[in-house]
Amino acid sequence: MDEFAVLPDPDDPRLTRAVDGIDHEGRAIETAVVMERPLTLFLNGQEIVTMMTIGDHPEYLAVGYLLNQNMLRPDDEITGIDHDDELDVVVVRTRRETDYEEKLKKKVRTSGCAQGTVFGDVMEAFETVRLNPAAVLHTSWLYQLTKKINTLPSLYLKSGAIHGSVLCHADRPLIYMEDVGRHNAVDKIAGFMMLNGVPADDKIFYTTGRLTSEMVLKTVQMGIPILISRSGFTAWGVDLARQAGLTLIGRAKGKRFVALSGAERIVFDADPAAVPEEERRHGRKSGVTDDAA
Amino acid sequence: MDEFAVLPDPDDPRLTRAVDGIDHEGRAIETAVVMERPLTLFLNGQEIVTMMTIGDHPEYLAVGYLLNQNMLRPDDEITGIDHDDELDVVVVRTRRETDYEEKLKKKVRTSGCAQGTVFGDVMEAFETVRLNPAAVLHTSWLYQLTKKINTLPSLYLKSGAIHGSVLCHADRPLIYMEDVGRHNAVDKIAGFMMLNGVPADDKIFYTTGRLTSEMVLKTVQMGIPILISRSGFTAWGVDLARQAGLTLIGRAKGKRFVALSGAERIVFDADPAAVPEEERRHGRKSGVTDDAA
Repeated sequence: MDEFAVLPDPDDPRLTRAVDGIDHEGRAIETAVVMERPLTLFLNGQEIVTMMTIGDHPEYLAVGYLLNQNMLRPDDEITGIDHDDELDVVVVRTRRETDYEEKLKKKVRTSGCAQGTVFGDVMEAFETVRLNPAAVLHTSWLYQLTKKINTLPSLYLKSGAIHGSVLCHADRPLIYMEDVGRHNAVDKIAGFMMLNGVPADDKIFYTTGRLTSEMVLKTVQMGIPILISRSGFTAWGVDLARQAGLTLIGRAKGKRFVALSGAERIVFDADPAAVPEEERRHGRKSGVTDDAA
Repeated sequence: MDEFAVLPDPDDPRLTRAVDGIDHEGRAIETAVVMERPLTLFLNGQEIVTMMTIGDHPEYLAVGYLLNQNMLRPDDEITGIDHDDELDVVVVRTRRETDYEEKLKKKVRTSGCAQGTVFGDVMEAFETVRLNPAAVLHTSWLYQLTKKINTLPSLYLKSGAIHGSVLCHADRPLIYMEDVGRHNAVDKIAGFMMLNGVPADDKIFYTTGRLTSEMVLKTVQMGIPILISRSGFTAWGVDLARQAGLTLIGRAKGKRFVALSGAERIVFDADPAAVPEEERRHGRKSGVTDDAA
């Protein structure tokens, strides 16, 4: 797959809007703000959820959401995905008959972001996953990945207030998705992987969001052995990562990072000292006080 | 009320945990990560939601959540709040009989954070609120507030991966709450205000989170006329703020900020140029690419 085979399109007029305001000196300015729109997801005949999304990949979002909620199985045959742009509705149809009435009643408001729901059977599925013990992360890859991701034109650089997730292989970012909710960005990648048959066990997942229990659960469920974030950790996220043998790296800024699980996959092949002083200072400064997200 | 009458306690052993890991040079380190625990909320006999929270103010969180979801009315008489620390349950009892069975069935997965739910009648309540047109924000206050808040010892400075919300009056931060979900931090302040009879119409609200529709809805519903964030905006958040006449200030870092609604309340009494060059450079650098949250 090509580097950045899927990437943000900050010039897409549906994704941001220019609005008038004033700055700190009282001067009139125009600035870009990110758009959010509702998308109601149906699985076969059943309404599952209404999500707020930037709306750029409704099919991937729909499939990824269902997968990550265990409402779609990896071996399910998808017979159709219909997106109606005017009604803001997406319908996923499967050969298997589905009914999640009971499941939809049981929701937990979670600590992280966007989604706010974890279903009990997600935990059950989590416990059956075996992550690839042979996967590795070279620190030189990590530095290349964060540099490439952070300098690519994105909605984040244009307007802020958005989360990004990137599926990577070695030092190459492959699929870069952004969304107002970080779980949407993750789900869009999960949907892309299923619909395009992308293997997970040799991949690295990068997210701008915090390493909460939900983020760890999803990464493990997707079968990806390495998760990197520039943000920090929650205790439950760390516990789950250790339980699953996930390599969990947070506070990755400049050349600094902290690994709290699965450090045996890390190959230290880069010299963190071999970077400009300015970059190191910046990294140190924002090391712990990361983006809460 | 005293400055920082309520403030974070980063030394509380229930809120963070020390975990072992390695840093970017492979050295063993110990770092603090924030704890999250479930809290199940009942209103009278009815189970409402299970939240993930750091757990420091369950009574305020419970009351604030119910208020901000319109399940508790400002004039409701609360006859009891029982928190069971072992069962992780909090029960709010009111003189008025309540039943939100129908309401609980209708949820929307929202773009922002944590909560993931907005109920239709929140929008209805929003439309009836009149924010104080006489409230003002001096830019000198804004600079004092952000400086005081950002330098106070907090869980954010200790462990990261957490959100903060602060209720302020003029240049004085009064109530500073943190939580893993930013909506919890907001709800805890709403609960504090109701239980202590704190008026809203002369207050300023500061949040670390993004200025999404949900954040604007809650601030307006709480009756607070001015909302400040160091993070960015979503388009719907801006629309709702303009509709309600809320003063909406984002990307507030260093001396910089952007106001996209209600700028008539801002009094420019500080000279942004009268700050050290280092601080200005920092502010400029992180101006747009803010914390997505």
